[in-house]
Amino acid sequence: MKTEIAQQETEPLIVDKQFFTFAEAPDKMVLESGALLGPVTIAYETYGNLSPAKDNVVLIEHAFSGDSHVAGYYSDDGEKLKPGWWDSVVGPGKGIDTDKYFVICSNILGGCMGTTGPGSINPETGKPYGLEFPMVTIGDMVDAQKKLLEHLGINQLLCVIGGSVGGMQVLEWCVRYPHMVRSAVPVASTMRHSAMAIAFNEVARQAIMADPNWKRGAYYGAEPPDTGLAVARMVGHVTYLSDEAMRRKFGRRLQDKNDFSYDFDIDFQVESYLRYQGTKFVQRFDANSLLYITKAADYFDLTQKSPRSADERDFSRTNAKFLVISYTSDWLYPTYQSKELVQALKRTGNDVSFCEIEADAGHDAFLIPDPRLRKILRGFLDGVPRD
Amino acid sequence: MKTEIAQQETEPLIVDKQFFTFAEAPDKMVLESGALLGPVTIAYETYGNLSPAKDNVVLIEHAFSGDSHVAGYYSDDGEKLKPGWWDSVVGPGKGIDTDKYFVICSNILGGCMGTTGPGSINPETGKPYGLEFPMVTIGDMVDAQKKLLEHLGINQLLCVIGGSVGGMQVLEWCVRYPHMVRSAVPVASTMRHSAMAIAFNEVARQAIMADPNWKRGAYYGAEPPDTGLAVARMVGHVTYLSDEAMRRKFGRRLQDKNDFSYDFDIDFQVESYLRYQGTKFVQRFDANSLLYITKAADYFDLTQKSPRSADERDFSRTNAKFLVISYTSDWLYPTYQSKELVQALKRTGNDVSFCEIEADAGHDAFLIPDPRLRKILRGFLDGVPRD
Repeated sequence: MKTEIAQQETEPLIVDKQFFTFAEAPDKMVLESGALLGPVTIAYETYGNLSPAKDNVVLIEHAFSGDSHVAGYYSDDGEKLKPGWWDSVVGPGKGIDTDKYFVICSNILGGCMGTTGPGSINPETGKPYGLEFPMVTIGDMVDAQKKLLEHLGINQLLCVIGGSVGGMQVLEWCVRYPHMVRSAVPVASTMRHSAMAIAFNEVARQAIMADPNWKRGAYYGAEPPDTGLAVARMVGHVTYLSDEAMRRKFGRRLQDKNDFSYDFDIDFQVESYLRYQGTKFVQRFDANSLLYITKAADYFDLTQKSPRSADERDFSRTNAKFLVISYTSDWLYPTYQSKELVQALKRTGNDVSFCEIEADAGHDAFLIPDPRLRKILRGFLDGVPRD
Repeated sequence: MKTEIAQQETEPLIVDKQFFTFAEAPDKMVLESGALLGPVTIAYETYGNLSPAKDNVVLIEHAFSGDSHVAGYYSDDGEKLKPGWWDSVVGPGKGIDTDKYFVICSNILGGCMGTTGPGSINPETGKPYGLEFPMVTIGDMVDAQKKLLEHLGINQLLCVIGGSVGGMQVLEWCVRYPHMVRSAVPVASTMRHSAMAIAFNEVARQAIMADPNWKRGAYYGAEPPDTGLAVARMVGHVTYLSDEAMRRKFGRRLQDKNDFSYDFDIDFQVESYLRYQGTKFVQRFDANSLLYITKAADYFDLTQKSPRSADERDFSRTNAKFLVISYTSDWLYPTYQSKELVQALKRTGNDVSFCEIEADAGHDAFLIPDPRLRKILRGFLDGVPRD
């Protein structure tokens, strides 16, 4: 690990965001709902080099509020150097070794980090879509990524990997394009969004919709619904942590004081943390994207046939090798849900390994630097046959 | 149980809310914060008859959004007969048998169901207090109840019992008036509010404060912050349930439809349930009371000395007999927190029994009719010595 840190300091991984546009009118993208969307721009980043046989591609799927910037630094980051969201896992010599693999990560459809979403311009009106943006599903996100891979001339994924909502995309890839995927690693994820997970998402949506600035999504160019979005983010943040993590991290410690304020200012450090997370989030995220992405997650369910298709949405058509990872203190997508996935994979005869990592950080654990995850991923990727 | 139901149907328990006022100026109530409050009106109800020796009093403490109407029906309920919130536990022949015990339940200080709270008139301005209402603590709630008992000529409690925030009041009674309490039953409660519980309360408060109608609490006579309060209630409701309970109760079932709406209308039953709970709550609860009561809960911590007092806040001065009850699926005040309480009681040499009830309903389990709870309470109360 010392070597890696030294490497990072002397040779930081520099990347640039790239863009690919498809589905220009009249060839719009047909979404799962039946609605049409186009043009669609995908913001993406790549790391490492594509092998001549194009057999070393690792596709990384980001979680709800992530983006294409999975590792390294942007060349124009200037002084404010902040590495990508999974920089501890992705890079030269790391768990997903960019000296060996060609890594791709794209911002999801419906997002707000460069890929087409509700804040993009609707070509029919010349104004941002707002709620005129059609509902997108996890399947639609995967279809858009498929177009990107076609554009890059790639038809084989050595591995598709992602946590949380990213894990849902991993599973959808295996169902939707079973022959393209050689291995799959869903992390801290689920086959179907539970009632509790839907409930928390609905609370977050209602918090945004309760903000008068939301204006049924048509707030672009005016004051955005920042207070509602901040509350929504606070709800999310509590679900990403765990009782243990919060006890360890904050306990009942007071914020810069020795006694209670006896008013509604901040008393406890945990209050300060949550308010900070809410305030920080509104600077980088679009409230409408939160609405669309949470809804896509809520719709996700591989245990049911799609209402619009007779296809079984199971894993019987893929030969991918699976590694399912969960965390002991994750109560948003608890281990039992990963075990349900493992059972489903066994029923269809797939090659599956399961790893539950002991961690008290809750759902967020997969984003926290952890040598165990790096080691597990490195070992798994080394064992995936390429031929 | 058939007998009981028959009894209820033929002889419904009819009660009336009563009021007691104290702390008239200049003898205002001194709160834990040092602030003064007065006059203070307590809304309360009594059930059964006080024994000549005044040794059969059971004081029931309601939870956050409860009120004094613990059982039976109001005489003016008319057609809309809805029994009290613990009618399954309290009544003739029930777990807390009103044929044997004189039951008292009062609305908590800071509430909005008849007891003085932020919606009451501030005598100094002639207008509702709003945020001029001083912060109250669990200890202040107990002090106000003490005044009510003095008014009723009662100086001995056979039992003080309550769930959730009510359980905190139970414990505070034992610390503050140790010689008045013969037995105590904290249910689904805690000795100190955890970081996670504070976090959820803070999200609820922020949801209210984000509502422009809140106007820093000065909304009386105008539009109340109903949308914020509804979101706050939705947050609360998710924490009162459990993953299992929600899976069983709602799963991923759709609300009155066969396919997704692909918009932001209600798709899932759990969304409909939450929105309904939010909407229903604003009809009966005051947003400012939620702010004050959640803050009182957040401040509650019997493991620390009070910042304003050198007293140890432990149980060494009481001879009360304790029964601590928790529920397996309660993740808001999980069983480990009840066990911490049991350990603390053992350390001070108190007589304590502990009962963890297997239930998948989450924190709300204590409010759901359950013959086990009735049986446990009946047995415990029968064994409390009255001399």
